[in-house]
Amino acid sequence: MQLAEIARRLELDTLYADYAACLDTDALERWPEFFTADCHYRVTSAENYEAGLPLGLIYATSKDMLKDRISALRDANIYEPQRYRHLISGIRIAPHPNPPPPAGEGGVGAGEQAGALEVTANFLVVRTLQDGAMILFAAGRYVDRIVHSEDGWKFARKIAVLDSRQIDTLLAIPI
Amino acid sequence: MQLAEIARRLELDTLYADYAACLDTDALERWPEFFTADCHYRVTSAENYEAGLPLGLIYATSKDMLKDRISALRDANIYEPQRYRHLISGIRIAPHPNPPPPAGEGGVGAGEQAGALEVTANFLVVRTLQDGAMILFAAGRYVDRIVHSEDGWKFARKIAVLDSRQIDTLLAIPI
Amino acid sequence: MQLAEIARRLELDTLYADYAACLDTDALERWPEFFTADCHYRVTSAENYEAGLPLGLIYATSKDMLKDRISALRDANIYEPQRYRHLISGIRIAPHPNPPPPAGEGGVGAGEQAGALEVTANFLVVRTLQDGAMILFAAGRYVDRIVHSEDGWKFARKIAVLDSRQIDTLLAIPI
Repeated sequence: MQLAEIARRLELDTLYADYAACLDTDALERWPEFFTADCHYRVTSAENYEAGLPLGLIYATSKDMLKDRISALRDANIYEPQRYRHLISGIRIAPHPNPPPPAGEGGVGAGEQAGALEVTANFLVVRTLQDGAMILFAAGRYVDRIVHSEDGWKFARKIAVLDSRQIDTLLAIPI
Repeated sequence: MQLAEIARRLELDTLYADYAACLDTDALERWPEFFTADCHYRVTSAENYEAGLPLGLIYATSKDMLKDRISALRDANIYEPQRYRHLISGIRIAPHPNPPPPAGEGGVGAGEQAGALEVTANFLVVRTLQDGAMILFAAGRYVDRIVHSEDGWKFARKIAVLDSRQIDTLLAIPI
Repeated sequence: MQLAEIARRLELDTLYADYAACLDTDALERWPEFFTADCHYRVTSAENYEAGLPLGLIYATSKDMLKDRISALRDANIYEPQRYRHLISGIRIAPHPNPPPPAGEGGVGAGEQAGALEVTANFLVVRTLQDGAMILFAAGRYVDRIVHSEDGWKFARKIAVLDSRQIDTLLAIPI
């Protein structure tokens, strides 16, 4: 393993740590900045993902859509009585590109794909309610495409594949 | 810390990430390939482990036994309605070898031990049931011996020491 | 990223892995050794932390106080029927120092601050009870200051900020 490869690996660790910290500190206005302008973002179930269905509980095809989502979320929730905690582990860079996602999921141009990394990682999100009760909110894996920009590593694609087929209908925050 | 030591550390991170991904994607036929031919694999309770008892809820002393286990598991379960998610963290290379395990647990030859690493890590396994309910399935630590082969790092020994004394009797998948 | 920066990052990974292993193996007598002599250690709620309140469920301003705490804990608990498992992820070195903590929390001298690192990380603690039941015991983040000593990296400050406002009144072990 060469120094450049090592550095890249640690930069990805930092990217995911920053991503989790952004969500867990409720700094949602900064969340779209983790993505490219023409990103693909989706939260879906493992069943739908494995069946190749492009459905998503949350679905966006640009950074602007992510910003809109956060604005809507802020308008809807005057007060957020819950806290979320993301545990992300098992970050893996695919040795060769993942199989191409179902049609219509790409969302990145040919130029960006040149240096793109296909990265997966496991996540667990714990939600702490106002009365102190903690629940397992979501578990699953990220199936991401990461590209290097002038402003550091960005998600060109992030699919949060949930182990559960059902999800809390109150799901609002990004995963 | 030298470059070789850094590279080794990151290779171990990758090994554990690959191991978790193998189990969580239900690619169980690839699971035995993480082990040496004469490996020792065991799932046991902390109580039994600390008492030096060689008992195991799952016990195997060769890669072939691991393959047999997966075959039996596939025959028994036509349909697997559960999903598992492994969160592995706190990977540590022992500065000096762990105390030798109780008699009969070795399972590695003198040649392999020369470059062997004693590694521990914490794990948490979350199980998602068919109806979407998530439970804490298992928590504990790995007490592993890892050796370098022509085909990369392999587990010469893996002991999954569960915090719980009891375990779901449906326990079937590897930890 | 230079080699020195990479090595430091991996040394911090090891520090947190060692810290978790110390607590989870109930080697509490070694726990104060992770701290500087004049350390600040606190377990608090996110609400109190964000309000700048110096309150803590556990509070110590020196390594000696940590030792006293462990002694008291050992005296009180003849037998500890619970096991704890720490999952720590998302370790981040702040690119520039965190905002100074509320007055009275510093606890480190000017000399130590020169090479100090401001580090945050997410944690999840799972407790396994005597009958095998597992619960989510605590989730939150560490807000730490780490300094390099002759004896390796030490915590000059560790604040465990819990997502919950309430905490099990039996809370006794360190987080």
